[in-house]
Amino acid sequence: MADRVKEILGWYGSENPGTLTNLYRMLDHGTLAGTGKMVILPVDQGFEHGPARSFAPNPPGYDPRYHFQLALDAGCNAYAAPLGFLEAGAAEYAGRVPLILKANNSDSLYGGSDPIPAVTASVQDALRLGAVAIGFTIYPASAARNDMYEELRELTLEAKEAGLVVVVWSYPRGSGISKQGETAIDVCAYAAQIAAQLGAHIIKVKPPTEHIALDAARKVYEAQGIRVGTLAERVEHVIQSAFDGRRIVIFSGGEAKGVDAVLEENRQTALGGGFGTIMGRNSFQRPHDEAVKLLRDVMEIHRTTWPG
Amino acid sequence: MADRVKEILGWYGSENPGTLTNLYRMLDHGTLAGTGKMVILPVDQGFEHGPARSFAPNPPGYDPRYHFQLALDAGCNAYAAPLGFLEAGAAEYAGRVPLILKANNSDSLYGGSDPIPAVTASVQDALRLGAVAIGFTIYPASAARNDMYEELRELTLEAKEAGLVVVVWSYPRGSGISKQGETAIDVCAYAAQIAAQLGAHIIKVKPPTEHIALDAARKVYEAQGIRVGTLAERVEHVIQSAFDGRRIVIFSGGEAKGVDAVLEENRQTALGGGFGTIMGRNSFQRPHDEAVKLLRDVMEIHRTTWPG
Amino acid sequence: MADRVKEILGWYGSENPGTLTNLYRMLDHGTLAGTGKMVILPVDQGFEHGPARSFAPNPPGYDPRYHFQLALDAGCNAYAAPLGFLEAGAAEYAGRVPLILKANNSDSLYGGSDPIPAVTASVQDALRLGAVAIGFTIYPASAARNDMYEELRELTLEAKEAGLVVVVWSYPRGSGISKQGETAIDVCAYAAQIAAQLGAHIIKVKPPTEHIALDAARKVYEAQGIRVGTLAERVEHVIQSAFDGRRIVIFSGGEAKGVDAVLEENRQTALGGGFGTIMGRNSFQRPHDEAVKLLRDVMEIHRTTWPG
Amino acid sequence: MADRVKEILGWYGSENPGTLTNLYRMLDHGTLAGTGKMVILPVDQGFEHGPARSFAPNPPGYDPRYHFQLALDAGCNAYAAPLGFLEAGAAEYAGRVPLILKANNSDSLYGGSDPIPAVTASVQDALRLGAVAIGFTIYPASAARNDMYEELRELTLEAKEAGLVVVVWSYPRGSGISKQGETAIDVCAYAAQIAAQLGAHIIKVKPPTEHIALDAARKVYEAQGIRVGTLAERVEHVIQSAFDGRRIVIFSGGEAKGVDAVLEENRQTALGGGFGTIMGRNSFQRPHDEAVKLLRDVMEIHRTTWPG
Amino acid sequence: MADRVKEILGWYGSENPGTLTNLYRMLDHGTLAGTGKMVILPVDQGFEHGPARSFAPNPPGYDPRYHFQLALDAGCNAYAAPLGFLEAGAAEYAGRVPLILKANNSDSLYGGSDPIPAVTASVQDALRLGAVAIGFTIYPASAARNDMYEELRELTLEAKEAGLVVVVWSYPRGSGISKQGETAIDVCAYAAQIAAQLGAHIIKVKPPTEHIALDAARKVYEAQGIRVGTLAERVEHVIQSAFDGRRIVIFSGGEAKGVDAVLEENRQTALGGGFGTIMGRNSFQRPHDEAVKLLRDVMEIHRTTWPG
Repeated sequence: MADRVKEILGWYGSENPGTLTNLYRMLDHGTLAGTGKMVILPVDQGFEHGPARSFAPNPPGYDPRYHFQLALDAGCNAYAAPLGFLEAGAAEYAGRVPLILKANNSDSLYGGSDPIPAVTASVQDALRLGAVAIGFTIYPASAARNDMYEELRELTLEAKEAGLVVVVWSYPRGSGISKQGETAIDVCAYAAQIAAQLGAHIIKVKPPTEHIALDAARKVYEAQGIRVGTLAERVEHVIQSAFDGRRIVIFSGGEAKGVDAVLEENRQTALGGGFGTIMGRNSFQRPHDEAVKLLRDVMEIHRTTWPG
Repeated sequence: MADRVKEILGWYGSENPGTLTNLYRMLDHGTLAGTGKMVILPVDQGFEHGPARSFAPNPPGYDPRYHFQLALDAGCNAYAAPLGFLEAGAAEYAGRVPLILKANNSDSLYGGSDPIPAVTASVQDALRLGAVAIGFTIYPASAARNDMYEELRELTLEAKEAGLVVVVWSYPRGSGISKQGETAIDVCAYAAQIAAQLGAHIIKVKPPTEHIALDAARKVYEAQGIRVGTLAERVEHVIQSAFDGRRIVIFSGGEAKGVDAVLEENRQTALGGGFGTIMGRNSFQRPHDEAVKLLRDVMEIHRTTWPG
Repeated sequence: MADRVKEILGWYGSENPGTLTNLYRMLDHGTLAGTGKMVILPVDQGFEHGPARSFAPNPPGYDPRYHFQLALDAGCNAYAAPLGFLEAGAAEYAGRVPLILKANNSDSLYGGSDPIPAVTASVQDALRLGAVAIGFTIYPASAARNDMYEELRELTLEAKEAGLVVVVWSYPRGSGISKQGETAIDVCAYAAQIAAQLGAHIIKVKPPTEHIALDAARKVYEAQGIRVGTLAERVEHVIQSAFDGRRIVIFSGGEAKGVDAVLEENRQTALGGGFGTIMGRNSFQRPHDEAVKLLRDVMEIHRTTWPG
Repeated sequence: MADRVKEILGWYGSENPGTLTNLYRMLDHGTLAGTGKMVILPVDQGFEHGPARSFAPNPPGYDPRYHFQLALDAGCNAYAAPLGFLEAGAAEYAGRVPLILKANNSDSLYGGSDPIPAVTASVQDALRLGAVAIGFTIYPASAARNDMYEELRELTLEAKEAGLVVVVWSYPRGSGISKQGETAIDVCAYAAQIAAQLGAHIIKVKPPTEHIALDAARKVYEAQGIRVGTLAERVEHVIQSAFDGRRIVIFSGGEAKGVDAVLEENRQTALGGGFGTIMGRNSFQRPHDEAVKLLRDVMEIHRTTWPG
Repeated sequence: MADRVKEILGWYGSENPGTLTNLYRMLDHGTLAGTGKMVILPVDQGFEHGPARSFAPNPPGYDPRYHFQLALDAGCNAYAAPLGFLEAGAAEYAGRVPLILKANNSDSLYGGSDPIPAVTASVQDALRLGAVAIGFTIYPASAARNDMYEELRELTLEAKEAGLVVVVWSYPRGSGISKQGETAIDVCAYAAQIAAQLGAHIIKVKPPTEHIALDAARKVYEAQGIRVGTLAERVEHVIQSAFDGRRIVIFSGGEAKGVDAVLEENRQTALGGGFGTIMGRNSFQRPHDEAVKLLRDVMEIHRTTWPG
């Protein structure tokens, strides 16, 4: 199995040994160690949605240490969170779970049609906290997209020089696109491509729908007969759009939902060649043991399900 | 009692010994030394509201040295003020009271619906003045919130590297929220969370009201039966929202009011698990001896009143 | 008399010996040396109003060297001007009169309701020209006030580290205030407070009128019975508002006017405890000998007139 | 033939040997080595137009390594692409084909009338990837043109100090010009001049049409009898406009089209003294062997066709 | 005659020997060497107006080397051009003619009522190209004037530290002024003053008209009886406005016109005490020998014509 990890590292041949080492640490950690698959626990909802909406359904989650422990108990490959949440446990859990420092964040107290998160942490913070990676959200289709791309460029160069991994959340959103277009298959595939072109090592996108949003794209999808009927097919297309499968692409879990829906979505993702999932609310909002079970079930799917 | 201080320092395990030392200095100073509680004297009203509105009610307060002495006489844990006020007494009072340099400030000569203070001091200023901490105001819900978060990120990283403590005033305000919403319980709790996620060591929020401002939040408060009927309950919820009580949260005194109201508010705060208060106009606008008595009475409440 | 200088230096105890030395140089120079009073010659009108409006009434003033000589002949404590004017005489007059490099300036070829000057010189320029101080204008009540405060913060920190003095022209102006409000007593007092809080050593404001501009302030002025009926009373209130008299505050001369008016204004200023004046057009637009006489008469007033 | 390369290097006498070396590497590589002509393979369409629109017509192109190989197989002088695409093959193909790192890029998920690309890579990235040049797009006629010129100035200075070559895509576009004006002969010639004045070593413009867009220019074209009737004449005028032929100017291929049209366009370009072409969609969207044949046919035209 | 050069250098006593050396190089070069007068060849029209409008009337001018040679043949004191034009000849002509690197430029493909050029070169560029000076355009009366002044401040400080001369083109233009006002005598005089105050060593303004644009100025011109009836009188007033003649002020040639008009304008300029001219289109758009003759005739006027 570790051959698969070696193969994946080979895709990142331009990176220095420091970055390869940290990428290895993520791929070699937890339940999915050595499989080339990844299930990551992200907890930025406290910042993004507010504390009660995030943690009241499972109050132990108010304590930042809970999530380090959950990631550890479930055997996640990594735990991703904003500065404060990582600071509050990084010393106590030092070295026990790979950390991704989420370097930009938005809150919900101010709206606006063209979102841009605040940059809330730096590469220096990631290094002092012992993190293996920085995480960064871009919103293609926002009027402010260039600002995000340029912030990311600077952080990415700095991160790579420091031997860190770069994880990009690529979520089209803003006045350039409709609500429905945000998860359209052509848009999700484009979002994965943009993140890859910007130098991301690991890319997180939303599970795409069958909708095609851009006229110029629709012509090509039809002319070339690109199959997007099932989620597995769409995932396959997104993976192909991220350098023909030579970049790690994982899919977000989205809103809290039932266990069966979560499992089925992951099965489709795995069938399409997806590398795993990054699942927040569906894990930490459940009671601890339920969450561990669900995460392990999802991992089992990814460990055992491979494209046709 | 000093065990409580040791416990509190334990929450900040990611910080370097320099920052822990300065946090200790605040927790170990004055009347409340060793209790883990804090009463801070803040005097930025000269900048924020103008000199006559701030100091004419008690004219000795025009002299910057008055406030150092007041903080000393009352046994406050620290004294917080803008650059000029600290410069005007820092040498004379060197070492006698922990200083917080308020690093951003607004004046009242220009209005506008989306406030952002000017950054008026730097970490370098704090160091040359012997301060133990920098103070910084953020206005979540302002269109300019991201600018504030990013200014704070830079100051925070610099402060932590220099061994300083970071105190954040988190006051939702601006076009993203109604006037009533500014002190809504869900908004105050969210404000505490944001400050904590941004890396604050000490967080100052306003005493919350029973109002819930955000629709998405209201559903959760109702569904989860979060109790917000009394100020003590609301304080408890805010404390929980700041990393389950693992961050120091203190409550502002707000407008000048009667002695009884001040004492009752502090009693509720203490019952809810609040760590203390930061009380400006209610202290320095009273005659010196009255102010000292009130501050000491408030300290006595915090020293003796504990949750449940 | 030099005891008074020592006393004044004592107010600036946070500054390094370099800054105290340069402040001493200004207080120890010229006719008013040792009195703690200051009369400064400022010539930035060439930039602000244009050359003919400034110098045609007394054409020798077109030559930058004229003003160095005038300051010297009259025994002014210092001479303040923009970069070019100082460059054009700094070598020839090296060391003979303390220089203040005016570091920001506006011209009159473009209007606009929210003024902000261009930053036209740096601390490095002040050092290479042998200046003892930088001068900087802020316009509280302008929509761009924060930009000015932040430019000033950076220059101030740099200047203080380099042992220079910081002189701030604090002139409320812009869409936040009416024309009449610009010189209202509450606004002038507030302007002095803001400059002091920003770290200014010497503050220049306009002679205030009896008008009170801000509603929130008016209530306090009435309730506390603050006396603002005479210019001397108003000056006293402004001085009090600048750290209870522990910052040097001087008053601008304003538009060119008759000798008697100038002398009377200075007498009132001195009676109110003002530290002196900064008088441009009323000096350099008069013929040399008249200007020297007027400046010396003004100095005599400040030397001999003291509050009640 | 290599005398021609020496002659061309002579035009860049202000550059350091590092830059001359990298320019030599491009002129000395592939099928056209030593001729002074250049055919470059650019693949930034994945970022600019999205993955399916770019690569679905010839799916092997999803894999970044495909384009390195195509450039190698066809004997292109260089291969140009954004950060991600270069990172994904730079190690595997190290040294085998000169690389141009495209340092700014736009995506199609957001529109707007005054385009400006995001800066997506740096000189430091070019150096760590072993690239010989950076590529940069400017849009004269955009309201944001100055931002692009200034970004380019900084990158250019840095690149030249690091011994890299600077390739500028100069495409007038934005609210300053009509759609038809974008390829007008006067505008294309002006675009070449601007790029040259900004310090570009190699300039890429679009094949110009007979249209003249600017009134002030039209008078001169008519008065001076500048001949712009054929594409060859127009190319000659553009070449003259780029320092009288002393800068390398190549022409873009534009939209995918038939083989005959491509060859004829290149013949005209060569007749007019153009230095070659940079041809993306017309090559990589064709099957590999067709693309290699077309690129080699184009090279043969440039090798054998000369002005007059 | 060289005494005059020594006298002029004396006006710049604040500058380091490096800057004085480069100023000397310009004053000591070419036909007017030692006279204290200057005729400079500027060729930035390729960037500003486009190549055909600039060079088609005399096509050898497309070649950047042509202008170095023209400046040399005519004996100009210096040659000024943007980055690209200097790069294309600086090595070949190294040391043979003093170079002024024009550090900001505008093109004509985008309009707008408040112009600001792009900064297109740096002091570092000037140094690597062996230039003696940087040139910079400011547009007082533009809403963006402060940006230009601040860019100039930074370049000027850097240039002076590097021993370079600073030449400022001061052209009032923008929404603060009417078209007629751009060359009004009060405005031109003000423009010269602003440039001088910003630290310029050599100032280029347009020949002023009799018009007075600013009401506040008109009163003074009338009251003081400032004579502006002839061009010579107006030039004299502008020279006086630039530090009473202690800054080098030269006048631009403006649009192409007849030989007699050019000569007469220069005669008036010289009579008024102007230091020379900077003449682009009127020289390089004429055939080489005509241009040389005209430039030499102009120089002869400046060599032999002196104020009353």
